[in-house]
Amino acid sequence: MISNADIKLIRSLKEKKFRAERGLFVIEGEKMLAEARASDFVIEQVYHIEEIGEKAMSRICSSSSAPPALAILRIPKVNSDTSLLTIDADSLSLALDGVRDPGNMGTILRVADWFGVKQIYASQDCVELYNPKVVAASMGSIFRVKCTYCSLPELCKLYKEQSLAVYGTFLDGDNIYEQNLASTGLLIMGNESNGISKQLEMEVTHRISIPSYNCSKAESLNVGVATAVSLSEFRRR
Amino acid sequence: MISNADIKLIRSLKEKKFRAERGLFVIEGEKMLAEARASDFVIEQVYHIEEIGEKAMSRICSSSSAPPALAILRIPKVNSDTSLLTIDADSLSLALDGVRDPGNMGTILRVADWFGVKQIYASQDCVELYNPKVVAASMGSIFRVKCTYCSLPELCKLYKEQSLAVYGTFLDGDNIYEQNLASTGLLIMGNESNGISKQLEMEVTHRISIPSYNCSKAESLNVGVATAVSLSEFRRR
Repeated sequence: MISNADIKLIRSLKEKKFRAERGLFVIEGEKMLAEARASDFVIEQVYHIEEIGEKAMSRICSSSSAPPALAILRIPKVNSDTSLLTIDADSLSLALDGVRDPGNMGTILRVADWFGVKQIYASQDCVELYNPKVVAASMGSIFRVKCTYCSLPELCKLYKEQSLAVYGTFLDGDNIYEQNLASTGLLIMGNESNGISKQLEMEVTHRISIPSYNCSKAESLNVGVATAVSLSEFRRR
Repeated sequence: MISNADIKLIRSLKEKKFRAERGLFVIEGEKMLAEARASDFVIEQVYHIEEIGEKAMSRICSSSSAPPALAILRIPKVNSDTSLLTIDADSLSLALDGVRDPGNMGTILRVADWFGVKQIYASQDCVELYNPKVVAASMGSIFRVKCTYCSLPELCKLYKEQSLAVYGTFLDGDNIYEQNLASTGLLIMGNESNGISKQLEMEVTHRISIPSYNCSKAESLNVGVATAVSLSEFRRR
């Protein structure tokens, strides 16, 4: 059984405002639940379809078909004060400048996880991490890759103070296949339409680009795809 | 103005059955329309929002917000009889084995276009090319990359008869970064959940894999992302 109050709570968590207020978010499916249990995340409540029924599950879920399980999790407290940020000088990290599409954000989490990136920094205008579509598209990687919202120009300064590279992806950068790519530093991916913002561009030390091999008109790669191709290049070296 | 009969026709084209019956499909947005005009596709009818009004446009479109323009296009006739198939021995082509998700299919068209792949072969159980979500996700690449539905085992035989490589992507294949990759042949990508089917696997001459760099649990890459990383590796050589 599930109370009307709980149904109301869970449905409210589809909205960013209520997630922020309550400090809670929702995951759906057995696989996600298993991944949550294997993580440090705090699980507040679990609902199984055999207990609450398909009708109630349909009312509370975001998926188009009712999942076998749904859980409420606590949003971990993270520090977003850039003056207290520390950076990992021994690893490559990822920074996202205004990634707005939840599907892209989730894909980037999954790709980062695959290529062993443990830390993502996101500008404040990126889509919120606990949006149901981000959570679903991350396929569980949300439990393994840390994502911190902060000022990216401030973050870049920290990297540069330690003489670490700040890579930025542009349509007119240097051919990524011909660069020396470090195994440390920061790789910045830009907004879906506008790329990396002007202000942040000034902080980039290495402008890189994935060359197009067509003689035709494809204008750009999707940011999730571009992140994967870029990380693949960093990792294979 | 738009007649009720036209509204009915356009709405019916959201369904595969009616697209097949009529030999028509729909595109939305000014950019897609411009790309259609630059292509060989036959445009049957164009509707602009300033002519038919926002209300009518909302009724006929698939997008969540009414696009400035919508057009009906003729589906080009393609030959799907494998006995009449010819292959391009001088280029790398892509084969999709049971790619079901329209977003993935559209992404793969866009990625193929970026990396200069001109021909995609799709198994009959792949999502249909003119599905509105495939068309939208292709971002216009649907007009530049040819997609032929056919029997992939038969297709592979054609490649092998000409001593061309048939690459297949697997979770347990050889590290793609360490292989000699030809600039010709066929690259097969598998279904989202099950990968390349058992029957088709027997036709593969080179089993390749994108290695994971995490010590954790990401199970796989999305097929659109895996296609991009693979094509990037073929192209940079």
